[in-house]
This record gives sequence, C-alpha cells and structure tokens, in this order.
Amino acid sequence: MTKVAIVLSGSGVFDGSEIYESVLTFLALEEKGVEYQCFAPDIQQLHVINHLTGDVAEGESRNVLVEAARLARGEIKELGEARVEDFDALIVPGGFGAAKNLSDFAIKGADMSVLPAFLDFAKGMHAAGKPVALICIAPTMAARIFGDGVKCTIGNAEDVAEAINTMGGKHQACPVDEVCIDADNKLVTTPAYMLAGSISEAGKGIRRCVDEVLKLV
Amino acid sequence: MTKVAIVLSGSGVFDGSEIYESVLTFLALEEKGVEYQCFAPDIQQLHVINHLTGDVAEGESRNVLVEAARLARGEIKELGEARVEDFDALIVPGGFGAAKNLSDFAIKGADMSVLPAFLDFAKGMHAAGKPVALICIAPTMAARIFGDGVKCTIGNAEDVAEAINTMGGKHQACPVDEVCIDADNKLVTTPAYMLAGSISEAGKGIRRCVDEVLKLV
Repeated sequence: MTKVAIVLSGSGVFDGSEIYESVLTFLALEEKGVEYQCFAPDIQQLHVINHLTGDVAEGESRNVLVEAARLARGEIKELGEARVEDFDALIVPGGFGAAKNLSDFAIKGADMSVLPAFLDFAKGMHAAGKPVALICIAPTMAARIFGDGVKCTIGNAEDVAEAINTMGGKHQACPVDEVCIDADNKLVTTPAYMLAGSISEAGKGIRRCVDEVLKLV
Repeated sequence: MTKVAIVLSGSGVFDGSEIYESVLTFLALEEKGVEYQCFAPDIQQLHVINHLTGDVAEGESRNVLVEAARLARGEIKELGEARVEDFDALIVPGGFGAAKNLSDFAIKGADMSVLPAFLDFAKGMHAAGKPVALICIAPTMAARIFGDGVKCTIGNAEDVAEAINTMGGKHQACPVDEVCIDADNKLVTTPAYMLAGSISEAGKGIRRCVDEVLKLV
C-alpha cells in the first residue's frame, strides 16, 4: 500500500499550515486509498497571528508540533521520526507556516534557509527517487531541496517568483486548478491559496496535485 | 441565492470545532453554489487542550472567536451579529467546542445549558421556519433549542443518547454515512466523528446532511 508523509507547520493560514489545503490533501489521499502520516517539527512558531485581526499576538508562543496536532486530530509524529524508507512520497501543504516555521522565507526572501530537519527529510526523499509535492507558498523551498534548475510554481506572484529564480529555481506561471510538474526531480507544485478565491478552487488543484504525485510513485 | 450561517466554537476537535467537519461543510456548501458566513462567540474557551497529548494546557486561555477565525481564514463575525433574516439555514459542525463552549454538555450532561447568544439565534432560525443542521456532538443541544420530542442522532453512543432522551429529545441510532431528519422541526443531524473512522467517512454524512438542509430551505 502506498504511504505518504505529510509535513505540517502549525494550524492556521497566517502562522501555520493552511487548514483547507491540509484537509483537502488528506481527503484526496484517502479517497485514493492511500495511507498517510502527518509530521511536524517540535519547535516554537515564529510567532502567533491573531487570525481575526491579522496582528501578531504579542507575548504568545505556540509549538508547531502541538498546533499541527489539531489538524491531525492528534495523529501526528515529531518530524525527526520520519524515515525515508517508510514512505513512497512527501506532501507539504502551504500556509505561512511553510515560510515561517519550515523555512524563514517570510523574513529573508531569497536569502532564506530551510529548517535542517525538514531539509534532510525532503532531500532524502528526493535522493531515494520518491516524488515530492509542495503546495501554495511551500515551493519557495524547492531550490534549496532540489538545487539549481528545479521547475516549480507558486501561481503568478511576481516577487515570490523572482525570489525562486534568484535561488536557482525556474518559476512557471500556473493557474489555480493546474499543477507544475518537474518530471526529472519528481516534484509537483500547485498554487492553491496563492491564487484560490474559494475552497473548491483550491481543492481542484490539490486533487490534481495528489493524483500526479501518486502517478510518480 | 441561498445563504447559510455556520456557527463555530473554536478550532480543534478537543476544545473547539472539529476541523475536518467544518472544512467539509464549507466545501459541500460551496460545491452546491451556496454562500455561507461563519460566526463564533467572543468568549474564552472552557479550556485549551494540547492536541498532541490530550491534556489540558494549564494556564493557557484562548478566545473562541479568535481561534475559530483560523478555520475561517479570518472571514468570521461575532455571533451577536448573526441576524435570522439574513440567512436561509444554520449549520453547526461538531467537535468538543459544541459541548464545551456553545454549551456545557461536556461538564453537566443532561443538566446542560446552551450559550444564550447561540440559543437565541438557533431558536430564532427555528421560529422562522428555517432548517438547522447539528453535526456530531452538537445535537446534544437539540432539546434545548427545539423542545420536547425533537428527533436527532449522535450515532450510537449510549450515554449521550440517554442524556438526549432525558432532556426530552428522541434519539435515533444512525450510521455515519446517513442523516436523521426531523421534518416537523426542520432539523437534520448526522454522527460524523462520533462514529467516523476516517475523513472520507465523515465527509459522506456531512455531504448528505448539507444536501438535506438545502432541500428544506
């Protein structure tokens, strides 16, 4: 049976994993009869955003693994426990957590670095020839994982696309219901909430993304 | 255009709205071309549960509206702003928040009371002949909203069913992919994660529930 590792970065679009993208990924995998296991790093979030106001919640601190556990109904493991040999593919939903907790793209742009525990696992999956999907803003990590020339999309946001190209990636514009496939690297990316105006719009791209990843297994 | 009010109770199965049930409700509504608006009360949660360990996070306090805003990507209003005349139907996803924040069923069982702001809105919708859906554990509030003889389901948990009957409701056992309809009261209930073993299982009942509610509009 195909088994997919999903790496989460909290629970909430502005400081963690985008909730709809994550849930739609779980649903698409399950409907394909594919098993999945969620992981998240046991680190503090960059910050906590009050999702009602959009402001930083001063003085508050939350743990990425503990918050991501909300999205996984408690069925989640620490990222360090993820072993390449146990999985056929890796999927990373978006949300600012990918750019704030799994990497520091939100602060450093093209000078970003990726959380070592995540970078190791993602590079390990790639080295083992296993497909990876990065959703929404998560493809900002593609060049660090796959190296120069990797093809990916975050939709059409020019500043983000430029940062990806500066890091050595090759950004391709892509509509919300489509995916960008780098067949050599077995990398599938889709814009989701970088472009989506609604949950069903995000759902179309994510379903497509999951399908393409599973074809590459 | 049909417009549905959704009342949330936080974000996370153990102390707020069940995330999958909420997202699947949004998706089902959107796929039917129905508009929705999320609401939540501006009150503190009963407590915060660490979803990794299942323990109460001692000393932590979170606001129901602020946390529910995560589930709504910020697009949410305070429950007091919900006006019966603006909506055609009301849907309440489950999660312990329904029994801890919208009511105190989790503590008081059959002696429970319902948060006045929610009770007023739900009773107002009922009085106006508009359909209501209560998902998962939320039907424990049915007897307080609709009065004696209301038919509903929470699946097959005997203790909860007994509490519902003690309060004057008429519990009906129901499988996860089905709904219980009280046509006179225009109340639709479905077990979802009271029984679901997977997100797609919960999804079937919720999709059915949304369909039946829309038929009653």
